[in-house]
Amino acid sequence: MSRPAAPSLSLGELAQVAKAQLRGDGRFLVKGVAPLEEAGPQDLSFYQPPRSPQILRETRAGALILREQEVGLYGGHALISSNPYASFARVLQHLYPVTRPVPGVEAGAWVASDARVHPGACIEAGVRVAAGAIVEDGCWLETGVVLGAGVRLGAGCHLFPGVKIYAGCEIGPDCTIHANAVIGADGFGFAPDGDAYVKIPHIGGVRIGRGVEIGANSCIDRGVMADTVIGDGVKIDNLVQIGHNVTVGEHTVIAGQTGVSGSTTIGAHCRIGGQVGFAGHIRIADGCIIAGQSAITHDLRTPGVYSGVLPARPVRRWRRLVARFDALEEFAQRFKQWEKTAAARASAHREESDD
Amino acid sequence: MSRPAAPSLSLGELAQVAKAQLRGDGRFLVKGVAPLEEAGPQDLSFYQPPRSPQILRETRAGALILREQEVGLYGGHALISSNPYASFARVLQHLYPVTRPVPGVEAGAWVASDARVHPGACIEAGVRVAAGAIVEDGCWLETGVVLGAGVRLGAGCHLFPGVKIYAGCEIGPDCTIHANAVIGADGFGFAPDGDAYVKIPHIGGVRIGRGVEIGANSCIDRGVMADTVIGDGVKIDNLVQIGHNVTVGEHTVIAGQTGVSGSTTIGAHCRIGGQVGFAGHIRIADGCIIAGQSAITHDLRTPGVYSGVLPARPVRRWRRLVARFDALEEFAQRFKQWEKTAAARASAHREESDD
Amino acid sequence: MSRPAAPSLSLGELAQVAKAQLRGDGRFLVKGVAPLEEAGPQDLSFYQPPRSPQILRETRAGALILREQEVGLYGGHALISSNPYASFARVLQHLYPVTRPVPGVEAGAWVASDARVHPGACIEAGVRVAAGAIVEDGCWLETGVVLGAGVRLGAGCHLFPGVKIYAGCEIGPDCTIHANAVIGADGFGFAPDGDAYVKIPHIGGVRIGRGVEIGANSCIDRGVMADTVIGDGVKIDNLVQIGHNVTVGEHTVIAGQTGVSGSTTIGAHCRIGGQVGFAGHIRIADGCIIAGQSAITHDLRTPGVYSGVLPARPVRRWRRLVARFDALEEFAQRFKQWEKTAAARASAHREESDD
Repeated sequence: MSRPAAPSLSLGELAQVAKAQLRGDGRFLVKGVAPLEEAGPQDLSFYQPPRSPQILRETRAGALILREQEVGLYGGHALISSNPYASFARVLQHLYPVTRPVPGVEAGAWVASDARVHPGACIEAGVRVAAGAIVEDGCWLETGVVLGAGVRLGAGCHLFPGVKIYAGCEIGPDCTIHANAVIGADGFGFAPDGDAYVKIPHIGGVRIGRGVEIGANSCIDRGVMADTVIGDGVKIDNLVQIGHNVTVGEHTVIAGQTGVSGSTTIGAHCRIGGQVGFAGHIRIADGCIIAGQSAITHDLRTPGVYSGVLPARPVRRWRRLVARFDALEEFAQRFKQWEKTAAARASAHREESDD
Repeated sequence: MSRPAAPSLSLGELAQVAKAQLRGDGRFLVKGVAPLEEAGPQDLSFYQPPRSPQILRETRAGALILREQEVGLYGGHALISSNPYASFARVLQHLYPVTRPVPGVEAGAWVASDARVHPGACIEAGVRVAAGAIVEDGCWLETGVVLGAGVRLGAGCHLFPGVKIYAGCEIGPDCTIHANAVIGADGFGFAPDGDAYVKIPHIGGVRIGRGVEIGANSCIDRGVMADTVIGDGVKIDNLVQIGHNVTVGEHTVIAGQTGVSGSTTIGAHCRIGGQVGFAGHIRIADGCIIAGQSAITHDLRTPGVYSGVLPARPVRRWRRLVARFDALEEFAQRFKQWEKTAAARASAHREESDD
Repeated sequence: MSRPAAPSLSLGELAQVAKAQLRGDGRFLVKGVAPLEEAGPQDLSFYQPPRSPQILRETRAGALILREQEVGLYGGHALISSNPYASFARVLQHLYPVTRPVPGVEAGAWVASDARVHPGACIEAGVRVAAGAIVEDGCWLETGVVLGAGVRLGAGCHLFPGVKIYAGCEIGPDCTIHANAVIGADGFGFAPDGDAYVKIPHIGGVRIGRGVEIGANSCIDRGVMADTVIGDGVKIDNLVQIGHNVTVGEHTVIAGQTGVSGSTTIGAHCRIGGQVGFAGHIRIADGCIIAGQSAITHDLRTPGVYSGVLPARPVRRWRRLVARFDALEEFAQRFKQWEKTAAARASAHREESDD
């Protein structure tokens, strides 16, 4: 795509934005940003381990954000930061600010007469805001967003096109929800009743904290009686499923296509990979790091790194491994038998020798 | 969220709703419902194994639905039911009925002139109903729902916001489809043709039975020539993928993020966990129970419980296990060699002894 | 569903459509198409291995597309093709052409005054086209589609209802995007900063080639600084997640619920099963075939077939296998010990015998 134009700024100004220390000419004019490989003499980029520092000798970037430890390896203008990635993120935010549309309710939006929409919010055409909903200052609801009855949106929320929020859910301030995500659908609860099922009404809701980001096409189900709760600062990727009555602690990040079954509690400051599956009714301690595709079937009581991912292999080798896996029980039994026989023989042998 | 208000009802009335037997004061007034841990003296809750009955001594709930076997462990007012969970579901349905909006087609809906919409149906603003579609009595289509040409919706269906149903699909009566689910998209069918692919037109449809519930952001693809078929009473969770020409038997439940590849047939009364993957062109017997994350690569011909989930471990231990797994072939070969050598040695030893 | 009516055509005409050789009566009138099992005397069907050729003796189909090798096994009218499946696909496309609506912008669509919509495009009610977007000839945008600012759609694209394309993304000609798919949402990028995270603005976009098909509810995230790139002819199934800065080579097919983590490069002409998970920052060679549910954690440098799927078993047997797997480390240690002891004993025995 054609990159949006960014204003040229001096490295001195950007040092302040980046919360970094200037090492070089503060008047150096940054005209763009780019990855290390692609940056040119007027571009700013950043370096951070675990990447090999070799790139620092090769990059053509005119200026870099990097750590004190690596500054000697680079010849250009530098901004020193203990966290170059975060500093670079701040620079990007400064150079490419999100521009919100003019506040107001566009023609073609359907807003219930008793909904309360702050005049500083922007409601685009094709949005529905149902009875009793509250939309605070600075919210931006794009086309196709639907807020059910009594939904509350804190100030500064950005709902991308097609987001659906069911009745009664509460979203904290400064949340970003990406396109077609669904918040507050009924959880998967059906009581077996003979050959069929009786639906469990879900009279709980969803309560989302401050500064949460939720990915496109993700789903967060409402609780049965209590609420499903997402803590402050949580980041959820695309196509994630959060079941009813789940709690996710603050500043936990969950990558794409992960699923959390009902009534599970995930602690704060966890980092969870993609396609992970959590069983229901379990507890994950604060600070757990979980590799993608892992199956979490029991409580994780101590912080740490967990994995359950079995990497793919060339198919012939894999088939042999699966056959061996399938035969593990028999293999182990055979070995046990061998140990027994061999022990008996050894003992016989000892007796013989003792003779 | 602020719980919707429910009318206070006597335990006697609720016994009838719950199809349960009253044990205690029928005039006891139930003012709310809550989980066992949170229920207060005016609340109704329920108890069912496999939960530990210890909670029955601890709960402050004024009234409980529970089984005859456990009633002695609880001191409050009781409703006896052989299936307390289902009874409680019926009470919730009674106390919190779904209130449907006033029937009619709202301004801002786009309904084709030759579509047939029953006057008892409610079509919200922002809904599109294409040519030849039929919407029966009591249906509720929320904002952003799109029905393609010739779609048929049985009486009493509730389509949450953003549901898309492609042309020609048929949905039975009393179905609930959650937000942004997609019914009837083309299946994934492309014939390799040299270096590229030729698209297989999908002229089949989707046929969904009575009383089916489908989760948010789930997809059910149309068939190539025949239909994809979902039986009566089937419950499908969020983010589930059902491929072309799949058949799902009646009253089967499928949890979130499971995927069923094309032309697979799943029997009736199955219970399938989340993130399960089914290969294509296989058959699953009635009554199969499948653990979450399992890979189902072949027919399951007999009812029973199946699993393929390998639980995650702390990452250091896991890495050693994966290394062992990777070495299984060599390990097994080495063991075989050992058996041979040892057998030879044993036989030599016998001969020696025989000397 | 009630199959759409197709015109009757002679087998001679269809031979041309199918790029196949006529073997039989060219005047034979084909009145329908059907799978081999269901086809009747006026229907056309097709046969292709690996299916058992036994069906060729059993089918009641009046005419078949099949290979030269099998034609002797079938008694009816035949069309000979080296690729019967592709030939049949062409016949279906001919018999059931997609009928596009009358071009123009329907009332109820919201099109920015400076967007450029070709008069040959069809924009349905409830579509939003934002400022600066370009929609070429023959495009069809169904209800609920949203194009962000500056989006470019090549000629002949079909966007099913509810597709959302974020600002600045570019879609090549002749693409099909199914309902509720989301193109160009921000990737999952947050820099850790103390206890919380700083969002990485995504100023890159998504660039999609010619003739690409994308399934319902799939997500393709925009890049951080560079673009996410999908090559010509790529086919992506439903509920697939493509992370930021991913590249997918031309004519690669990716089945449902697969996830590709950020900055991974997938080669051309790959065939990837469903529910596969790719780690980030890896490279997959052209021509790789990957079984469903596999975890791809490292580069695949050579074309070939790869698998990582562990098939489910009856739960009791599975639990024993998992227990054995969990004990692999100890088992291997015990075996190693045995080898040592036995070797020592054998050596002692030799010495004894040598005495």
